[in-house]
Amino acid sequence: MDGPDLTAALVDIASVSGNEGPLADAIERALRRLRHLEVTRHGNTLVARTALGRKERVVLAGHIDTVPHAGNFPSQWDAERVRLTGVGTSDMKAGVAVQLRLAAGVPEPNRDITYVFYECEEVDVAQNGLYLLSRSAPELLAGDFAILLEPSGGSVEGGCQGTLRAAVTARGARAHTARSWMGKNAIHEAAAILDVLRAWEARKPVVDGLQYHEGLNAVEISGGVAGNVVPDECTVTVNYRYAPDTSGEQAEAYIRDLFPAWEVTILDNAPGARPGLAAPLAAAFVAAVGAEPRAKLGWTDVARFAELGIPAVNYGPGRPEIAHTPGEYVEAAPITAAEQSLTTWLTT
Amino acid sequence: MDGPDLTAALVDIASVSGNEGPLADAIERALRRLRHLEVTRHGNTLVARTALGRKERVVLAGHIDTVPHAGNFPSQWDAERVRLTGVGTSDMKAGVAVQLRLAAGVPEPNRDITYVFYECEEVDVAQNGLYLLSRSAPELLAGDFAILLEPSGGSVEGGCQGTLRAAVTARGARAHTARSWMGKNAIHEAAAILDVLRAWEARKPVVDGLQYHEGLNAVEISGGVAGNVVPDECTVTVNYRYAPDTSGEQAEAYIRDLFPAWEVTILDNAPGARPGLAAPLAAAFVAAVGAEPRAKLGWTDVARFAELGIPAVNYGPGRPEIAHTPGEYVEAAPITAAEQSLTTWLTT
Repeated sequence: MDGPDLTAALVDIASVSGNEGPLADAIERALRRLRHLEVTRHGNTLVARTALGRKERVVLAGHIDTVPHAGNFPSQWDAERVRLTGVGTSDMKAGVAVQLRLAAGVPEPNRDITYVFYECEEVDVAQNGLYLLSRSAPELLAGDFAILLEPSGGSVEGGCQGTLRAAVTARGARAHTARSWMGKNAIHEAAAILDVLRAWEARKPVVDGLQYHEGLNAVEISGGVAGNVVPDECTVTVNYRYAPDTSGEQAEAYIRDLFPAWEVTILDNAPGARPGLAAPLAAAFVAAVGAEPRAKLGWTDVARFAELGIPAVNYGPGRPEIAHTPGEYVEAAPITAAEQSLTTWLTT
Repeated sequence: MDGPDLTAALVDIASVSGNEGPLADAIERALRRLRHLEVTRHGNTLVARTALGRKERVVLAGHIDTVPHAGNFPSQWDAERVRLTGVGTSDMKAGVAVQLRLAAGVPEPNRDITYVFYECEEVDVAQNGLYLLSRSAPELLAGDFAILLEPSGGSVEGGCQGTLRAAVTARGARAHTARSWMGKNAIHEAAAILDVLRAWEARKPVVDGLQYHEGLNAVEISGGVAGNVVPDECTVTVNYRYAPDTSGEQAEAYIRDLFPAWEVTILDNAPGARPGLAAPLAAAFVAAVGAEPRAKLGWTDVARFAELGIPAVNYGPGRPEIAHTPGEYVEAAPITAAEQSLTTWLTT
């Protein structure tokens, strides 16, 4: 089975965050057949390592979960077999397919390789398989350089933006809706929170030569007591994506300053990582791929490797700009191209 | 037990809509001890009728459910035993207490009386006990005049406003929040729905000599897909309280016109009732009570009786302006006064 067909097979094993068991089982079976790899399992996260005694070790990592389905499961090829549509095609089962093809097809690489297939990247940081591994068995992640096969359109993407979620709550006073002027409607008050979001303008800073693009969005809103009661509470959950020139603490202070009139609760916060392309291995890899590197906008576990002191980049065949959309797709050619570039870099 | 103490006892049997069983059981036990009444039960709705062959029959009706508790259960008397605080005190267990006191204390009224104690008034019309009875056994509601013991501050309140609920939905396009400009945030779009509500000005028309006061409120808002997805849908549920010079059809058209840019789904719609105080029995009752009648702002089942062709008014000891608030209370004196006024009217 080639890389594109393997991608389709991986997509067709549903693995929405928290339900990766069947896909992890299938990957584990495939890896355990490969005698040159030492395989360990941690929940629904798998680690497979060569042990050839090479001077350098490279980590190739990818998450196996997807966002919830949106009428885009199972996968579907177009007539020409150029484009594969479906949930997780770009983000990031095409990258996982490349990892598996390399694991089977490059038994004697010029650098030792650690393959990581991990769960729960699309949800709270606390459940993230790579995060859990970095706490329970960091020695398994040791290496001189890491590549995350997150969708990057076939270019090397440096660093990543941070991501913070906060609950912003408007308060009011309950009353019967027949005499609503006796109360204060918290949902109406929350319009002012949404006005802040609508008026917000994205910063696009250049960091270490790469241009980032921030984002601030409501990702959830809820309020209401009963059909005839003026509600006294309405909460807007916002997701702030911030450039890597901003620390986690600065991001938190920024959000608190932006919503001074309301109660702000920080729900989670994962700082980004500066590009770090000056590190020798990173520079060599960028040169091997050949294309101009660019900024990674989504948060990825590049930040987790940065935290462990391991230079890391994103490089994968998926298209980041359509990740998480109902029309998510990946093209066959970049999957094969990524496999070839990496094979060349790991064998010559 | 006098009326105020009976009110406290009724409040202390929790009866949030849908959970009226224990209170209905207690009321049924009390009614079945009274030999001069014919008692029937329909779900958690009770009907008790005298059968004295009088020329006229009066219906005294009240709902036994309350809105959800808000830290105001059980009831509490103040030090002077003037004010009883708690959920359902005003709306409307004080009225139910008056009904029960009359049922026991006026065995031979000058008009036949039908007492109705019914469930689920605070929720969707489809579950309303009086509505169900009007469909399954309308003959039990027959009468020449009806009094609803809804909170009216001891005055006769004429007619009632209609109430309509509609879901107003903003649409967007999903995207990853790391590249939110690829999508369209439906929660941000919903701010424009809330802007309509915030800018709305209440109409206060005079109908048949009484002044009404309309209201338009968001009572629920919901939207969101996942913590890192730009949401493609956000729904605001609005409650429109409209004066009785407006029909149900007109109210629906008004709401559709008010939100032309969004998808509007009518969830329920109960038209109001004009005051109708010109009917002889209504006029006689108003004269007996003595105070100046005023408009009823909340929707009440006066509209249900109007639909059955029975003139009806609201008259009860509770205070309508604090119904459904956490600080809801009732005073002891109006409970006793209402019992006395009605006893006089029904016996002299």
